[in-house]
Amino acid sequence: MTFSELSNFYQILHPRPVVLVVTCGRDGRVNVMAASWVTPIAEDEPTIGVAISRDTYTRKLLDEVPELTINVPSVDLVDEVWKAGTVSGRDVDKTKILKLRFSSSEKVKPPHIEDCVGYIEAKVRQIIPVAEVDFVICDVLLAKVRSDLLYKGQNVDHRKARILLHVAGRAFSYIRDIVYPKVSER
Amino acid sequence: MTFSELSNFYQILHPRPVVLVVTCGRDGRVNVMAASWVTPIAEDEPTIGVAISRDTYTRKLLDEVPELTINVPSVDLVDEVWKAGTVSGRDVDKTKILKLRFSSSEKVKPPHIEDCVGYIEAKVRQIIPVAEVDFVICDVLLAKVRSDLLYKGQNVDHRKARILLHVAGRAFSYIRDIVYPKVSER
Repeated sequence: MTFSELSNFYQILHPRPVVLVVTCGRDGRVNVMAASWVTPIAEDEPTIGVAISRDTYTRKLLDEVPELTINVPSVDLVDEVWKAGTVSGRDVDKTKILKLRFSSSEKVKPPHIEDCVGYIEAKVRQIIPVAEVDFVICDVLLAKVRSDLLYKGQNVDHRKARILLHVAGRAFSYIRDIVYPKVSER
Repeated sequence: MTFSELSNFYQILHPRPVVLVVTCGRDGRVNVMAASWVTPIAEDEPTIGVAISRDTYTRKLLDEVPELTINVPSVDLVDEVWKAGTVSGRDVDKTKILKLRFSSSEKVKPPHIEDCVGYIEAKVRQIIPVAEVDFVICDVLLAKVRSDLLYKGQNVDHRKARILLHVAGRAFSYIRDIVYPKVSER
C-alpha cells in the first residue's frame, strides 16, 4: 500500500462529533463555541477533555466561571454550529444571532441548549497547556439525552439521533447504518 | 423538550473514530489495542491525546518504549478492530491472531498497519493520570493517508475513506453523505 503525507495530521481523526460549548461570565453573559476536539477520558470518575484555544472568549470566561455545558447537536443544526464556530463571542453576543433556545442547568451556572440531542454539565478539573491550546479536563456532573431518543431506557438511540459529525472545513456528516462485527460476543 | 439521564455519559460523545494503537516492548514484541477516546489537541505543535486504561498491556509497553502508531481503519476492518478490543496482549500475541499486516515506521519503533486508511506516528509528550486512565498526550511526528484516498493532493477523501466509527458496544458505523451549512463562507 502507498501512503502520502497529510498537510494537516488531524484530518485522519475526523469525522468526529462537533459540540457546542456553553460558558458564562461572572456577570451572567453567555457564550457559545463549536468544538470537535473533545473526548471522554475516564469512567470511574466521569471525565471529558476538550481542546480550547487559549485566545478564545470561551477560555477567558472559564477563568471567571470554571463550568460549562457540552451540547450535542443533530445534523439539523449544521447552520447554527457553523455560525457558532466562525464568529467570536468577543465581537457578538452569539445567543442573540443563533437560533437556539437556552435553559437553566441543574448543577452549573452556564445554561444548556434545548435544541440539542443531549448535553453534559461539567466543571473544570484540570487545565493542561499544550502549544496554542488549553486542554480542559472536566468532571461530568450530569449527562442527558432527549427522552424520545432513549434506547432501552438508558442508552442513546444513535440510529435516530443523527448526531452531527465534523468532517473537514465546511463538510459535516452523520451516520445512517449500524454495522456489527461478525465475530462472536465476548 | 424533555431530557432523560444517561447511564453512561460518554454515549452522547459517540459515534467517533476508533483507532488501533500499536506499541512495542524493548524486546520488539508488538501489541495492538482498539481506542476511541482519542482527539487532536493542538496544531502549532501537532499533538493528540488518547485515553489508555492504566492496567492495559499497551500502557505497560509505553513505559518501555514511549512511542506509538495510531492506525485508522475503514469499516471493512470492523471484525479485526473488535478482536483487538476484546483480547488482552498479556494473554495473546495479537499480531498472530489479527488479519493485519504490519510495516516498519519511519520515525518510531512500533510498526504501523498497512491495511488501514491512514496512520500517525507519535511520541509520548506528557501523561496525565485521571481516575483509572492515563491520558497520554503525544507529539505527532508524521501523518499519512492511503495515496488513493487523497483529496486535492493533501486532504483525506472522507467520502471514499469510510472511516470506522464506534457507536456503542458492538455497534459501529461510518459516514456516507456530506452535508454543508447553507450560511455563506467566512
